[in-house]
Amino acid sequence: MAVNLAPPGALATISGARWATAAAAIKQGGRDDIAVLALPEHATVAGVLTRNAFAAAPVALVRAHLAQARPRALLVNSGNANAGTGAAGLADARQLCAQVAQALGVETAQVLPFSTGVIGERLPLAQMQAALSALTPGAFDEAGWLAAAKAIMTTDTVAKAASRSIEYQGADGRRETVALTGIAKGAGMIRPDMATMLAFIATDAQIEQPQLQQLLHAVTAESFNAISVDGDTSTNDACMLCATGQGPTLAPAQPGWQEFAEALASLAQELAQAIVRDAEGATRFITLAIQGARDSEAARAVAFTIAHSPLVKTACFAGDPNWGRILAALGRAPLAQLDIDRVNIALDDVAVIRNGEPAAEYREAAGARVMAQSEFTLHVDLGQGDAAATIWTCDLSYDYVRINAEYRS
Amino acid sequence: MAVNLAPPGALATISGARWATAAAAIKQGGRDDIAVLALPEHATVAGVLTRNAFAAAPVALVRAHLAQARPRALLVNSGNANAGTGAAGLADARQLCAQVAQALGVETAQVLPFSTGVIGERLPLAQMQAALSALTPGAFDEAGWLAAAKAIMTTDTVAKAASRSIEYQGADGRRETVALTGIAKGAGMIRPDMATMLAFIATDAQIEQPQLQQLLHAVTAESFNAISVDGDTSTNDACMLCATGQGPTLAPAQPGWQEFAEALASLAQELAQAIVRDAEGATRFITLAIQGARDSEAARAVAFTIAHSPLVKTACFAGDPNWGRILAALGRAPLAQLDIDRVNIALDDVAVIRNGEPAAEYREAAGARVMAQSEFTLHVDLGQGDAAATIWTCDLSYDYVRINAEYRS
Repeated sequence: MAVNLAPPGALATISGARWATAAAAIKQGGRDDIAVLALPEHATVAGVLTRNAFAAAPVALVRAHLAQARPRALLVNSGNANAGTGAAGLADARQLCAQVAQALGVETAQVLPFSTGVIGERLPLAQMQAALSALTPGAFDEAGWLAAAKAIMTTDTVAKAASRSIEYQGADGRRETVALTGIAKGAGMIRPDMATMLAFIATDAQIEQPQLQQLLHAVTAESFNAISVDGDTSTNDACMLCATGQGPTLAPAQPGWQEFAEALASLAQELAQAIVRDAEGATRFITLAIQGARDSEAARAVAFTIAHSPLVKTACFAGDPNWGRILAALGRAPLAQLDIDRVNIALDDVAVIRNGEPAAEYREAAGARVMAQSEFTLHVDLGQGDAAATIWTCDLSYDYVRINAEYRS
Repeated sequence: MAVNLAPPGALATISGARWATAAAAIKQGGRDDIAVLALPEHATVAGVLTRNAFAAAPVALVRAHLAQARPRALLVNSGNANAGTGAAGLADARQLCAQVAQALGVETAQVLPFSTGVIGERLPLAQMQAALSALTPGAFDEAGWLAAAKAIMTTDTVAKAASRSIEYQGADGRRETVALTGIAKGAGMIRPDMATMLAFIATDAQIEQPQLQQLLHAVTAESFNAISVDGDTSTNDACMLCATGQGPTLAPAQPGWQEFAEALASLAQELAQAIVRDAEGATRFITLAIQGARDSEAARAVAFTIAHSPLVKTACFAGDPNWGRILAALGRAPLAQLDIDRVNIALDDVAVIRNGEPAAEYREAAGARVMAQSEFTLHVDLGQGDAAATIWTCDLSYDYVRINAEYRS
């Protein structure tokens, strides 16, 4: 069902970033549902976490642990979100962190827990502890990225992983190379408010933590925070960026930084778009390009209002260029003011609305041709200013309803 | 498909309010798709109209005409919204108003036009003019309410109409009676921002226009503005209240006013709820009762965030007490602050969340019993203050997707 999304190609190993996976029978079918990423001693880790007020127990613990210690391991499980589980859920997550810490010879606060899956059920602690006990140091492998990408899937149908590498001339004139690999999972409850679902990215570069954090914030704004499937912000969203420090040192304004930032942005955007392509029930991948806004916040507000309109989404499912629904959504967007006489709308390069009225040359057949494609861009020009925003979304199909009506049964 | 919604019962005639209907082949199947309400000379009319920036041509004309003259007729068509049609759409609507005005011997500005249906297509003017030419004065009938309710239907499956009557002791000690009858249509693109889709209510009382307008505003806030099907505010929403002035005079703080206001609120609520019961694809009717908010605006924001969550709506369709999705929606509601430790959630009288954690006595079977019903109430107590809000919504089913994917094909 995923829209133009192939399984991951070859993935670069990241020196010092070793994954181990295990099956704890949280998910059905004996598939791996636990993944642990072990990091070397001087690695730096940056993270952005959900802003949902009902943040899950593991998210609360990640916040607490990041404030206490330098992370050495990330523990991820799928099949159960450990959200809405109160104090008991917090104790469960802490106990699992302690077990991983002991196995790796680090402190409990150096382990960051992440969970994704059903909300409101306790973790099956005994099963998970048994599975984790098999994760001896020898189980960890730098080649474990694809296995980890599969282990964190829930209703995803395709594993999401990608690599980038950059080459640049270092300060001393030597040619340096830096690698980046990341994995992500998505599928539903996708309207990240700072990071999406779960995404884990690592590089072998050595980067100071504050600079890593700042870069991650900038990158997520244009990638994971620029997608929406259903407008539902998850309780467990997290995107973590780990620099293992085994490769060259990178810093802002130094050689390689710009290349690195661009490669990271490209990687994050590929993973974010993969989440939309593999969204629950998605049959079309839609780019919403808003321009002519007073500021980028207004442009984003318009984009998300259109992206969240069930009527626009079902028209996209039908491949029906029912632009009246786009107009209606735009008309209720939270803008201080909208001069409809200045609004232009196009589907790919087909002008539909010019100065607030149907374009004279517009023919329904032309709009239908655009929307029959599995991917297209909806351009909206508000005619108010110079700010723009681009986000990615998908359609609303029977399968979205089926998947989410059947999810727990 | 409508949820517990019977066809209208007996409707009271309103002295002086006469309807005529006609078939102009805008809708398929030869059904009536035009309805005209003629009002007597001293009638007063109040209205609330959509806030959608892309308000349709007829809405713009209603605003203009209300500012110019005292209305004598309402002209309604279904099957075509005359929205997104620019200057040509405005001219079409004006031409139809002129024809009705001439037939009734009134000014063009005394005719208010309303349209509902597909957005973005010109009205079939010649067909409509031919149909209207048959509406001689003899075609108008005080008993025409049910025919009018049927003529304004689009994807509605049940006509929506209701009456109320009040009795009270007048200032001179005499027993007075006042009647109220209203009709409405809904079905999709329902998230009224000031009034819903189309609703027309009339009373025989004599009421000054400013007082009628003020009362209508108060009443719509708790009825048509308290429902949502899909979060999509229509370009054509309108609710009109006509006082024909053929019966007793009513005024604030005078005998009968309180009874009248209550009867009007009850009638508006019944019609608003009927729109939700007959919403596109609806299989359940859900009351969202939010309390403990800082102010009523915050309570409404929480209610609509939950009502618009596709994940909550699909869980309702499945009858699945997946309260984690309610928590997740609540957690992303636009509140300045939320102490999750103070949050209580119940399904009817079954406590689900107490102080932010699963209630100790909660059992899934109890939640499932509530959600298996065709109607239930979701109670959320924010624990922040004394303000409350109640809104009504429905589930998201396969049929919503089908109806909206097929709407134009």
